[in-house]
Amino acid sequence: MTIAIKGEQLIAGESSRDGQITFSSVNPQTKTPLSWSFADATLDEIDRAVNVASSAFEETRDYPADRLAEFLDRVAVEIDALGGQLLEVAQAETALGKTRLSGERQRTTGQLRKFAALLREGSYVEAIINTAQPERQPTPGPFIGRMLYPLGPVAVFSASNFPFAFAVAGGDTASAFAAGCPVIVKGHPSHPATSELFGRAINQAIGALDFPAGFFSLLQGRSVEVGQSLVTHPGVTAVGFTGSLGAGRAIYNAAAARPNPIPVYAEMGSVNPVVILPGALQERAEAIAVGLVSSLTLGAGQFCTNPGLIFVVDGPQSRQFLEDVSQRLKDQEAGTLLNQAIESGLAEAVSQTQELPSIQLLTGGQVIAGESYCYANTVLQSTSAAFRANPDLQREHFGPVTLFVKCQSLADLLETMAFLHGHLTATVHADQNEGQVAGQLFQRLRDKAGRLIYNGFPTGVEVVYAMHHGGPYPATTASATTSVGMAAIKRFMRPVAFQDVPDALLPSALQAANPLGIWRIIDDHWTQNPFVRNEHPDIV
Amino acid sequence: MTIAIKGEQLIAGESSRDGQITFSSVNPQTKTPLSWSFADATLDEIDRAVNVASSAFEETRDYPADRLAEFLDRVAVEIDALGGQLLEVAQAETALGKTRLSGERQRTTGQLRKFAALLREGSYVEAIINTAQPERQPTPGPFIGRMLYPLGPVAVFSASNFPFAFAVAGGDTASAFAAGCPVIVKGHPSHPATSELFGRAINQAIGALDFPAGFFSLLQGRSVEVGQSLVTHPGVTAVGFTGSLGAGRAIYNAAAARPNPIPVYAEMGSVNPVVILPGALQERAEAIAVGLVSSLTLGAGQFCTNPGLIFVVDGPQSRQFLEDVSQRLKDQEAGTLLNQAIESGLAEAVSQTQELPSIQLLTGGQVIAGESYCYANTVLQSTSAAFRANPDLQREHFGPVTLFVKCQSLADLLETMAFLHGHLTATVHADQNEGQVAGQLFQRLRDKAGRLIYNGFPTGVEVVYAMHHGGPYPATTASATTSVGMAAIKRFMRPVAFQDVPDALLPSALQAANPLGIWRIIDDHWTQNPFVRNEHPDIV
Repeated sequence: MTIAIKGEQLIAGESSRDGQITFSSVNPQTKTPLSWSFADATLDEIDRAVNVASSAFEETRDYPADRLAEFLDRVAVEIDALGGQLLEVAQAETALGKTRLSGERQRTTGQLRKFAALLREGSYVEAIINTAQPERQPTPGPFIGRMLYPLGPVAVFSASNFPFAFAVAGGDTASAFAAGCPVIVKGHPSHPATSELFGRAINQAIGALDFPAGFFSLLQGRSVEVGQSLVTHPGVTAVGFTGSLGAGRAIYNAAAARPNPIPVYAEMGSVNPVVILPGALQERAEAIAVGLVSSLTLGAGQFCTNPGLIFVVDGPQSRQFLEDVSQRLKDQEAGTLLNQAIESGLAEAVSQTQELPSIQLLTGGQVIAGESYCYANTVLQSTSAAFRANPDLQREHFGPVTLFVKCQSLADLLETMAFLHGHLTATVHADQNEGQVAGQLFQRLRDKAGRLIYNGFPTGVEVVYAMHHGGPYPATTASATTSVGMAAIKRFMRPVAFQDVPDALLPSALQAANPLGIWRIIDDHWTQNPFVRNEHPDIV
Repeated sequence: MTIAIKGEQLIAGESSRDGQITFSSVNPQTKTPLSWSFADATLDEIDRAVNVASSAFEETRDYPADRLAEFLDRVAVEIDALGGQLLEVAQAETALGKTRLSGERQRTTGQLRKFAALLREGSYVEAIINTAQPERQPTPGPFIGRMLYPLGPVAVFSASNFPFAFAVAGGDTASAFAAGCPVIVKGHPSHPATSELFGRAINQAIGALDFPAGFFSLLQGRSVEVGQSLVTHPGVTAVGFTGSLGAGRAIYNAAAARPNPIPVYAEMGSVNPVVILPGALQERAEAIAVGLVSSLTLGAGQFCTNPGLIFVVDGPQSRQFLEDVSQRLKDQEAGTLLNQAIESGLAEAVSQTQELPSIQLLTGGQVIAGESYCYANTVLQSTSAAFRANPDLQREHFGPVTLFVKCQSLADLLETMAFLHGHLTATVHADQNEGQVAGQLFQRLRDKAGRLIYNGFPTGVEVVYAMHHGGPYPATTASATTSVGMAAIKRFMRPVAFQDVPDALLPSALQAANPLGIWRIIDDHWTQNPFVRNEHPDIV
């Protein structure tokens, strides 16, 4: 069954199209506008979406975890049911290729199902209990039990580069839903038809499981005002964002200036330093070159984990390696970029970087004129001295662009690490005998990145509990949180402690019998066992 | 041994006094300045303190947990060694009374020792591991292990009202030290001599255990600029604050406007609603009145958990109760306030509140002229309609002041809860037959407060793992975190994930053998067991 794409806001299951500012998506392979027309959400539409979310939260905040799990599973089923149409529409809007899009769909439904599993296991509520000490002197110690509860309505900003996995039903939405939070998505204007399909799939799940309609709304919009109005709406309690540093920081600033500030989990710019040690080059230069080129050109380089900064020790071997990588990138056809803004932004960024002192262009460096949005695979090189002197050399070039930084020695390389800003990842390639240096590097890189990779490549972010997809500013605005993996749910929850509340009035996660069978910390010990309420009888 | 109080900044163990702006503390019982003179820290002194903290962090970030534990224990010993002098000096500066101060000292050393125990147990690093899946198709799954690491130098702002427990060596400092973070304390200008004693005690511990001197500095200052300069220094990575909404918000704003924003954990204004249901009044009005008056006047009402807002259902019984509470407060001698600013601020706040519509003063309402800073125990009353209409009725009156809100019915009371702002605590008094209403109340209050109390009083915050001392804005700027209890350490840590890093290069918390014996989540299961690294051999 083909779903009609109507270009409407989806507000609590109702369609709405009040806005006068209209826009269309553009096929990046042909630079021609697609036939669907969309409208910027109006202030009134934004207000309605948040208000129905607040009402929905009155219900969903008390849903048991297994009800939320059932919902997440159903969203995954409804996404699968979009079938070939989803791939067609997304391909028209993004040109990412159906193989990649199929994989991304699987990742998207997979992460919904993994959050469902997390909910069913149940220990994610972080139940911590201190039992009463009725005999304590000079005053008895109270019973205190603490667990996590959902925050409230969450605004999610879709990314351009992952139209499924970091978008309408992506990781931010999945983790907010899992927490029990209603979600208002601001769809990315680069793929609004894809967004609408996902929105309709979510609404199918809401209808099927009798969730309150306000649990989800989709707002479209191309202008900055739509996002700003959403972030500053009093009913919004948290924001998830994936995108550029400029847009992310603007949203962070707007949220911080509210009468009541709210957390903004923005995953923004990152250049993902890669260090290739001499022994690793000696051992397997070609394998590293192949892997690096593949990682760099994945999705035409439009990955937040793209390896955009590579440190080597200068010498004949690394020069040869640099030449080899440049040649491979030159030989490889450049991919199609997602939209005109990325193409022109990339051209401007690379051209500004090229004008900095001690920068050389080895290959690429220009827009490839033609039917599609395209920028040549590009290699720049510079020196550690220039890198240390100029923070602009850590600017993100969002696309298939990398900068080699040649260091004079291992010592120079190690010291240069101190000049790194915050990044999502940092990678070290070493051979068996370079363990000590690799250890020193990891020690330094630990303060600079959220994920440290050994003999691998930063692209490919596993959706697992141990994943940390975050990092110090400017990689994110909240370095203690992750936007990928099961721990992402914690962003949308806050603890509540219950003091001397009778067992019957406690949430089941804190009840003495442990009816959920979850792991808890009781009197400072991890256990799945029940405990005994031991207060003085007049308290219970 | 008596320690000479010199009125100096303590910067990495060195004394410094460059500032030209000087101030003294004042004895609140006599309103006379004390003999010690202090100086506002200069920009250069602030810069030095942060820079030495950054250098110290290069070492302490790698200290094993048991080394940090030993340090915390030693700080507690050094505080105890301050003996009677600490109580004398603190009594002169705060007039809180030696019984209270002795208790607070025990709480302060107790929480240092509890963090030491947390470190020795070790599981606080939240190790989460996903083992490799070498056979996975289409690509092998990598090993990923994630744990928490310290953030970096932390700025701590002391509170006026807890000169020990929320001050130089208080909860913020203890939790930051426990994380491995150097601390720069901005001492509260109301008790600088007390601050200096604590500072010297911490420096004793640093010397004894050979910690880097920059692990701790104490900066004094009365002007806003000292705090602002500290918060905006590039080397500071997080801020802990306890104090007023105005000061806390200013610090939050300054941190959010930095080129690289940093988290501010500010515990600010809270009025701590208490609901007293009719059955509870019927059953034990006198006991509740006694408890309430005691809670309200503790520390002359200068508690962040002071019960400043009390909801009752209007009727003969609650009117009688209100009269009884007012009479008891009138009969009880008002305590000494900490300083002139609190006295005048309280007078201004109460007078402004009294001018609002539908407000009646039942007792108190004025400064008590005399030798000491003092404000009469004060009861105001209003109606639920007025409360709903005017957000200013939730303003904090920092001192022995409470506002009774009379509701027309239970239904009115329940609905009025929706108008509450964020608070640290919310309390319900009920009898055995009011369980259902109490449950409905807790459900509503859960979104409004960090800690829910049944048949008790909000003052008295237990230092235990399950404690949550936090709450939605304006109670705090970071509702997902606590400033009391063991979970406070999490504020000063961030996760780092290690992908495919060989076991020998991993931190011990993530090594296969689990040498620390800590609890970890391995492949989604909680366990203290070791695991097997099962990668394809060429990766390890």
